[in-house]
Amino acid sequence: MQQVNVAILGATGAVGRTMLEVLLQRRFPFRQLRLLASEKSAGQRLECHGRQFVVKKADRDQFEGMDIVLGAVDNSWIRHYLPWIRQSGALLIDNSSAFRMDPHVPLVIPEINAAQIAFHHGIIANPNCATILALMALWPLHCLYGCRRLWVSTYQAVSGAGKRGMEELTRQLQDPRMAPEVFPRPIAGNVIPQIGALNEMGISEEEQKLQREGRKILDLPSLQVSCTCVRVPVVRCHSAAIVAQTEKQIDLEALMDRIRHSPGLRLQLPYPTPLEYSGSDLTAVGRLRMDPRFPDEIQLWCCFDQLRKGAATNAVQIAEWALEQGWLRKERRTS
Amino acid sequence: MQQVNVAILGATGAVGRTMLEVLLQRRFPFRQLRLLASEKSAGQRLECHGRQFVVKKADRDQFEGMDIVLGAVDNSWIRHYLPWIRQSGALLIDNSSAFRMDPHVPLVIPEINAAQIAFHHGIIANPNCATILALMALWPLHCLYGCRRLWVSTYQAVSGAGKRGMEELTRQLQDPRMAPEVFPRPIAGNVIPQIGALNEMGISEEEQKLQREGRKILDLPSLQVSCTCVRVPVVRCHSAAIVAQTEKQIDLEALMDRIRHSPGLRLQLPYPTPLEYSGSDLTAVGRLRMDPRFPDEIQLWCCFDQLRKGAATNAVQIAEWALEQGWLRKERRTS
Repeated sequence: MQQVNVAILGATGAVGRTMLEVLLQRRFPFRQLRLLASEKSAGQRLECHGRQFVVKKADRDQFEGMDIVLGAVDNSWIRHYLPWIRQSGALLIDNSSAFRMDPHVPLVIPEINAAQIAFHHGIIANPNCATILALMALWPLHCLYGCRRLWVSTYQAVSGAGKRGMEELTRQLQDPRMAPEVFPRPIAGNVIPQIGALNEMGISEEEQKLQREGRKILDLPSLQVSCTCVRVPVVRCHSAAIVAQTEKQIDLEALMDRIRHSPGLRLQLPYPTPLEYSGSDLTAVGRLRMDPRFPDEIQLWCCFDQLRKGAATNAVQIAEWALEQGWLRKERRTS
Repeated sequence: MQQVNVAILGATGAVGRTMLEVLLQRRFPFRQLRLLASEKSAGQRLECHGRQFVVKKADRDQFEGMDIVLGAVDNSWIRHYLPWIRQSGALLIDNSSAFRMDPHVPLVIPEINAAQIAFHHGIIANPNCATILALMALWPLHCLYGCRRLWVSTYQAVSGAGKRGMEELTRQLQDPRMAPEVFPRPIAGNVIPQIGALNEMGISEEEQKLQREGRKILDLPSLQVSCTCVRVPVVRCHSAAIVAQTEKQIDLEALMDRIRHSPGLRLQLPYPTPLEYSGSDLTAVGRLRMDPRFPDEIQLWCCFDQLRKGAATNAVQIAEWALEQGWLRKERRTS
């Protein structure tokens, strides 16, 4: 396969480090791999799979010659770096929420809508992690019976708030009196029903993302998603309890069979728990159950590693697709 | 007020100890207070509010002369003791699930159906804790608009599995490799979507209780409850994310006003977290929100102390009602 130059922007954060790990594990065909971060992390050495990498300051010239930039910084920083990335001609696969709802930016879960990758204009967005979890788990159901309404309650790990979120949980478990900094309330021994700011309707940013991004990825503007997103004291795997209402009547056996044969999914009966999926790229589904009075309604439980399939692995999969299909440079597609 | 003799059966467990605490805090008018437990706990001294109590073995003669027995033992033990309690003529207010669905046994949350206390035949059942939480939070909504369907996801504390559950969490937080004994999977740093055995439909005991007990307490056989009950690493307070569909259109302001003025409830905006309600008797409600497209549907979040209002306090409230209304002895009512 063609070899390309790859940069990880935000390489010292929880997602950035996992991107490095995933690239090496999946033997991504890079010629150069640059780890970029802010000035204060420059010079740091990262070890991964027996290899040493030195983190460099994300200066303008560091993007030159790159084919792919994996973005693992927040919205304001990615906007700051964007002009330099654009100038380099690299494809940005971005994990922030800055560009997800831009109609010119494909929002991609490769198992669901890989074909969208072809239509990028230099940026492809990685969806929100809770969105990836719910949609991965529901994709077989949607293919067979058509999702109409979703009720989702999440059980989200602290890794969703990055390395600082993970450190805050560790420190609070040792000293429960430690004042919260990253989370709005103490997280050790607690659960917090707020992820991101609440809008004037009382809906959190995370809940809005789940609704909006779900509609965009499934190309289903009428999909109704009611959800409560909750932070729980789990390190790095998200879970969700989902009720789905479908257009057609559901055949539970057929659905389970479809899940068993879907890439990236594992049917684990009676159920998976998040701790078991730490480090895995699979989305695990269990506790599938129906009430005979509601043949168009199903309940299920799902888990996955938020840093892997919820962020790094999904981004690397997008890069692999773009590379394999020759969709890396936008000019290539139009030639 | 009339003074009565009270026994706590299972006094050394998490619920039994909380019953002792609640009786003393609420200055329950007892003449004698007997703390009863199994042989292995007999002789143990319990201190509470500066008073010392000695635990006695729950022999047949220990029930004699008692007016009220607060049951805090499991189903098989309460069935074992029941003949002796019956013989003593005491009213059993029982926290197990052994008698809850018996049509001759009132299942009571005093704020909702205190009038049922009058119809006892010697036993009144305390509902399941998740049921009390959901129904306390939903009672104002049901009064105003009539609940038709509920979708509930719970975030349940380890205290629901008693003292041993609480100890297992503590030990696993110190040594994550400790094999689970009380819970079906490790609970530290994890969440477990199973509380009680799963039936042939894949529904857990806790989920069945929430459905059946909710119908009985609200006297609403057609109420549809879809739920996922999940154990989380929180010590003693339960939370739930609830979606409710109602018969009539909901006026959010009117509902919030009703919650503000409902006994036992606190409207806490934007939301409460379980850790804050440790030791409280209140059920806290927040994150009330509606989607304008669904005027008969509301979402909310609620929390309470599982050992207090979820078990001990609810039982003591039932005892207070029975005493104040002269409903203690069944023969009194029929005279």
